[in-house]
Amino acid sequence: MKIAIIGGKGQMGKMFAEAFKKKGCEVILTGRRGNNIDAAKKADIIIVSVPIRETVKVIEEIASHIKEDALLTDFTSIKVKPMDAMKTAKCGILGGHPLFDSTVGFKSQNFILCPLKENNNSKWYRLFLKSLGLNIIELSAEEHDKNMAVIQGLTHISNISLGYALKKLGYNLDMGEKLSSPVYLLRLYTAGRILAQDEKLYSDIEMENPYSKETAKAYLEAVKEIESAVEKGSKSEFERIFTESRQYFGDKCKKARDLTGRVLNFMAKNK
Amino acid sequence: MKIAIIGGKGQMGKMFAEAFKKKGCEVILTGRRGNNIDAAKKADIIIVSVPIRETVKVIEEIASHIKEDALLTDFTSIKVKPMDAMKTAKCGILGGHPLFDSTVGFKSQNFILCPLKENNNSKWYRLFLKSLGLNIIELSAEEHDKNMAVIQGLTHISNISLGYALKKLGYNLDMGEKLSSPVYLLRLYTAGRILAQDEKLYSDIEMENPYSKETAKAYLEAVKEIESAVEKGSKSEFERIFTESRQYFGDKCKKARDLTGRVLNFMAKNK
Repeated sequence: MKIAIIGGKGQMGKMFAEAFKKKGCEVILTGRRGNNIDAAKKADIIIVSVPIRETVKVIEEIASHIKEDALLTDFTSIKVKPMDAMKTAKCGILGGHPLFDSTVGFKSQNFILCPLKENNNSKWYRLFLKSLGLNIIELSAEEHDKNMAVIQGLTHISNISLGYALKKLGYNLDMGEKLSSPVYLLRLYTAGRILAQDEKLYSDIEMENPYSKETAKAYLEAVKEIESAVEKGSKSEFERIFTESRQYFGDKCKKARDLTGRVLNFMAKNK
Repeated sequence: MKIAIIGGKGQMGKMFAEAFKKKGCEVILTGRRGNNIDAAKKADIIIVSVPIRETVKVIEEIASHIKEDALLTDFTSIKVKPMDAMKTAKCGILGGHPLFDSTVGFKSQNFILCPLKENNNSKWYRLFLKSLGLNIIELSAEEHDKNMAVIQGLTHISNISLGYALKKLGYNLDMGEKLSSPVYLLRLYTAGRILAQDEKLYSDIEMENPYSKETAKAYLEAVKEIESAVEKGSKSEFERIFTESRQYFGDKCKKARDLTGRVLNFMAKNK
């Protein structure tokens, strides 16, 4: 089996290349100046693993050169746009999104597949992913992006807006650390973890997902209502929002208390 | 030494009552139907430990009955309003805010003191708090409330608004758990931990603090700018906000990556 990983010199590409080689596959990696078309022509499985903003362009570059019995797949955090671009290819087509990074290994990690056109190579690839111990979840491209607009998009917006609000307030973060309660510290550092990363990756995840506008709007509406309750000094409004949200969380509140209790305990012991 | 803890039948009151008794003090606890005035008349140190929304009323009830050489203090999460009410008393006055709950013990926990009028009993009380292993931080009431509007207020708003936005979206939280990345799960459960608690406590912390309007407004402005960038699809706007916030966090980004890395690792091992 011959595997081409386009953009395969990144962390994720290297990690999968090793795994393929262990199964006896031949692996072609193309980096920034690699010959993508040449790699696509030769391979039985072609994996596009380039930055999000380059994914569609790269797919358009290689699609018509892929063998009909080969498989075209990818590692992109969004699925609607890349899979629309994949549709022009005559080969097997399977969208992919590894929900983990290269630091954690494969075992029990989530991997989303968005099936479009199956063939023998797509069947082989599924078995290969399962053999790594990955937990495969199947979704349509639309379902994937709708969920990721919340899981990634909303999580990111809530973290970035906390950091940006602190900056707007000119708040003294050193004082904050000195006076902090453990929940504040966890909240601050979760925002800091996101902000420590590549702004281009996060703007791509946000902007290339067709459903992020909807989640960003819902978040703004939620914050508007809370700010308005605070501005008016309306305890009843604030408490209504609070209890409606608690009811929505339902029995996840107990789970949340248990898990974060253990996390805060761990933090206290590992300062 | 005779100590009155007004509202002392709550968790925090009971915890401190035990500690006073260990030092050989006589402790008077008054609950919902206790005689606060009677307790205030007799005691050398009077600690107000009632729900935030009742604090000012209780201080007004007892202030004129306290002995001049006694100390009036409290355990309230806000300080400007309670300490304004305390000013009418002729005794020693010291605002107090324990930054921990009764589940963690005293050792190395933060305790904020806001000094107003010192006397021998206030000196004794400081030494007593230090003897418990508490870390004493001194601030003015205004500085306290400004900091808490961020550390408590902003943290709470960002958590509640995440929960409320998920409710507005009608998002399927079970699906979210199935598909989640570890950072999403930590973010979701941190919000759930806040929502699991008493809405009245959180509306008091928000509404009785004179500086929360300012922080809530800054948060709304931050979210508005981010939502507008997403709505317009402006990657450059989004990346500007992201990098400005990162610069503001400065070397706390590295700290954030390290600490949350350990937390996520702990979560992965303790599913």
